[in-house]
Amino acid sequence: MTDPKTLSDPLVIAGRSFRSRLFLGTAGYPNRQVMLDALTASGTEMVTAAIRRISLAGEEESLVELIGERAHFLPNTAGCQTARDAVLTAELAREALGTSWIKLEVIGDRELLYPDVEELVRATGELVAAGFTVLPYCNDDPIVCRKLADLGAAAVMPLGAPIGSGLGICNPHMIETICNRSPVPVVLDAGIGTASEAALAMELGCAAVLLNTAVSKANDPVRMAAAMRAGVEAGRLARLAGRIPRRRHAEPSSPQLGLVGT
Amino acid sequence: MTDPKTLSDPLVIAGRSFRSRLFLGTAGYPNRQVMLDALTASGTEMVTAAIRRISLAGEEESLVELIGERAHFLPNTAGCQTARDAVLTAELAREALGTSWIKLEVIGDRELLYPDVEELVRATGELVAAGFTVLPYCNDDPIVCRKLADLGAAAVMPLGAPIGSGLGICNPHMIETICNRSPVPVVLDAGIGTASEAALAMELGCAAVLLNTAVSKANDPVRMAAAMRAGVEAGRLARLAGRIPRRRHAEPSSPQLGLVGT
Amino acid sequence: MTDPKTLSDPLVIAGRSFRSRLFLGTAGYPNRQVMLDALTASGTEMVTAAIRRISLAGEEESLVELIGERAHFLPNTAGCQTARDAVLTAELAREALGTSWIKLEVIGDRELLYPDVEELVRATGELVAAGFTVLPYCNDDPIVCRKLADLGAAAVMPLGAPIGSGLGICNPHMIETICNRSPVPVVLDAGIGTASEAALAMELGCAAVLLNTAVSKANDPVRMAAAMRAGVEAGRLARLAGRIPRRRHAEPSSPQLGLVGT
Amino acid sequence: MTDPKTLSDPLVIAGRSFRSRLFLGTAGYPNRQVMLDALTASGTEMVTAAIRRISLAGEEESLVELIGERAHFLPNTAGCQTARDAVLTAELAREALGTSWIKLEVIGDRELLYPDVEELVRATGELVAAGFTVLPYCNDDPIVCRKLADLGAAAVMPLGAPIGSGLGICNPHMIETICNRSPVPVVLDAGIGTASEAALAMELGCAAVLLNTAVSKANDPVRMAAAMRAGVEAGRLARLAGRIPRRRHAEPSSPQLGLVGT
Repeated sequence: MTDPKTLSDPLVIAGRSFRSRLFLGTAGYPNRQVMLDALTASGTEMVTAAIRRISLAGEEESLVELIGERAHFLPNTAGCQTARDAVLTAELAREALGTSWIKLEVIGDRELLYPDVEELVRATGELVAAGFTVLPYCNDDPIVCRKLADLGAAAVMPLGAPIGSGLGICNPHMIETICNRSPVPVVLDAGIGTASEAALAMELGCAAVLLNTAVSKANDPVRMAAAMRAGVEAGRLARLAGRIPRRRHAEPSSPQLGLVGT
Repeated sequence: MTDPKTLSDPLVIAGRSFRSRLFLGTAGYPNRQVMLDALTASGTEMVTAAIRRISLAGEEESLVELIGERAHFLPNTAGCQTARDAVLTAELAREALGTSWIKLEVIGDRELLYPDVEELVRATGELVAAGFTVLPYCNDDPIVCRKLADLGAAAVMPLGAPIGSGLGICNPHMIETICNRSPVPVVLDAGIGTASEAALAMELGCAAVLLNTAVSKANDPVRMAAAMRAGVEAGRLARLAGRIPRRRHAEPSSPQLGLVGT
Repeated sequence: MTDPKTLSDPLVIAGRSFRSRLFLGTAGYPNRQVMLDALTASGTEMVTAAIRRISLAGEEESLVELIGERAHFLPNTAGCQTARDAVLTAELAREALGTSWIKLEVIGDRELLYPDVEELVRATGELVAAGFTVLPYCNDDPIVCRKLADLGAAAVMPLGAPIGSGLGICNPHMIETICNRSPVPVVLDAGIGTASEAALAMELGCAAVLLNTAVSKANDPVRMAAAMRAGVEAGRLARLAGRIPRRRHAEPSSPQLGLVGT
Repeated sequence: MTDPKTLSDPLVIAGRSFRSRLFLGTAGYPNRQVMLDALTASGTEMVTAAIRRISLAGEEESLVELIGERAHFLPNTAGCQTARDAVLTAELAREALGTSWIKLEVIGDRELLYPDVEELVRATGELVAAGFTVLPYCNDDPIVCRKLADLGAAAVMPLGAPIGSGLGICNPHMIETICNRSPVPVVLDAGIGTASEAALAMELGCAAVLLNTAVSKANDPVRMAAAMRAGVEAGRLARLAGRIPRRRHAEPSSPQLGLVGT
């Protein structure tokens, strides 16, 4: 899309401006080249990887460098189950990678990968106090989202469905409620399986979408990355355009009167 | 989108090739200029208008000419309630406009605007026999769709929801069933309200989407036209890319083992 | 339920009154005793079986007799694919069984088991003219439903989902539309998988529910028959009671003012 | 329903046995007589009211007495926004009413009426330590539900949708996940609008359903109470009966071979 209206609608998080509203993870691709091609096709300007997966010295460092040439690199604390563990991981990342941005994950269960909101709130408070720019992965709980924003989170990132499930947005009503009330950008994180769901997230009022598995495990990750790019643009444009109301009854698009030929 | 993979996937109906899979109607725009700008923003190459709405002589003829410069013009029989009336209307269109393509609408009720499938099947047979390229607007009935294809329809156009309702695709399962079995292209016609729904139609296997009210009555029709363009591209790319399966449980995108820092 | 309000709300079809709004099929049970126990647990007063499955002479006749002691027996034309075949089958049934009631099935495809509405309309007209009480199994097409009623069908029986699929009601909006407009009772036929879906059918305005596989193939058919009985009663009572409107926002059930202890 | 299978399936919470799995609130009825008639029609054995709404001395005390003749009385802390406030309210209730059972509500927002899970977890721990039987109203967060159970809650009561919204169960997948993993009974609390939704809650694995507005604000509260009773029974029976799997394709209930008459 080269529509100038898209370009004039940047996303701003913590003072940084993004033209793309699609954030991508880096795990699970068939190989590194496919990952890089998918990042390019997606147009993303924000890419995340688990700190624990990055060897912070040696050859693996090149992942961060490779990404750094294309996009803002956002380390995440995937795998952490306590605030203490997550804070430590974030500090390791800042020291090694020189960024104070962190996608904060604190999960309460290794099987469900569902956030532990008590630990998450605690870690958010500590990391903000320590000067981090914190983007917490949370659930679709409007009270938790507000607390995170009140504590200084730069954005809130509620899940659409369990990580990797591809179930889409299980509770659109609550995501919309969160978007309507949030003082910070809402990024839909987790659950998306296909492009229409990314578009729906934007139509509900999300500022951006973060996804990983839906692209990396698609049959053709590069093409799915392009699909997600278009889906996010479609949803954002539709949100800005203002959709028609839903009606329970039909309404003719063509006038019924003054017909020729009768 | 400049992805070459999109460009290499044209839609072919009755031997004619289309790069855009979005068809648009012309009714209900605030004014003619907005309509023309929306058509341009949509990238459409197929535009429909009701014969009965076109004054077939005089100044109004310019609508057909204006559209003809940008897209293939597809007259439709909106407002017809019998096969006889629809056939007559199609013949008037062919004579006046010099096209044998017709979007065939035969409705069974002025309030619901729902197709009368018996009359529709009859009119399709007659018009095919008379040399028309027939695209019938039908319901999400897989038996009717197959009959229409067997009779020689160039495509079938099942509804997603009542015309103008903006309810989206009320029965995705049946639309997918129709797509899986149809020997001719399936064009989702009617019901779409926003871009994610257009994307969903393509993901279910539709070859194209036809819509009108969702664009013409949006707060900003031109921007919604761009949204629909992106939505259709997103859905088509996602369909080709092959989405991940839905899972009832979470699956980590980041590996759980070999964690650094523990 | 012994609520007198239930008892005062009988269903009337073609002049015959039914206290139960649950109709059951007889196919696919583990054995005949389970079937009879399920019929009893369901409280049904209308039971259907395929003519083609009934040996019209000899020992199998006892099925009809067994059912006849408990409920009105409704033969059906399952397996017929043309109006001619269905009419012939109905006439065989009338001659052999002495009933002019017929559940009319004319399917367009052996795999989908979806009705062929053209043949169905034709057969309905012929059978009504021949003095039958016709209950046609149709799709969720409001125009077809109205035509069937206009031809003299005693009820219309749209599907909720494909036969045996257990997908529930795929398009509740259209079932509700049909109920709102139908001059004859609407019986939801096919697709129901569990009790909440039977309740939903009644809440949408259906006069009764017909099902078979959901009971006969449940792990415990007798208990599922009792579940369906309660589900249909629940949905009917809820329909009569008049549900609260859906709200997008919360509303306290407990007053917020005049609190004790503050 | 007099099915003996129903009677043999009591619900046990904290050692107390209930034959009815429907819990009802007492707010918002047109008048007290309608409330009492609805309680009777519902068959409920557990009735809740806000402590703050009960005048703990004087004439209003009769509400508790009236209910006490029919059902177990469960005071609730509706309106409380902090753990401290809720604990104090529960202690007031125990002292005045002589019951240590408490439905614990701690909301995070007066408009949304959504639980504040941090305060809820804290209050649950304190009240369990003080000897209360605690039934916390929570959100559909499986980690929070597990924490509440681990702290000693007698049941967990996740919401289906916002209080009073009548939206039903917005995220059935997550309610089912919670039911599958919970060591204590799961009671669906809030959001139910009609009987089919109460049935669905039970089919997903809930042990009981608590509702108020759906009955008290229905056009006919007494009849809706009867509907909810039947809905809960239907859903419980269906859960126990074991439903058929969902299939994407049709499956004939009547055999296709060996047809008579062909």
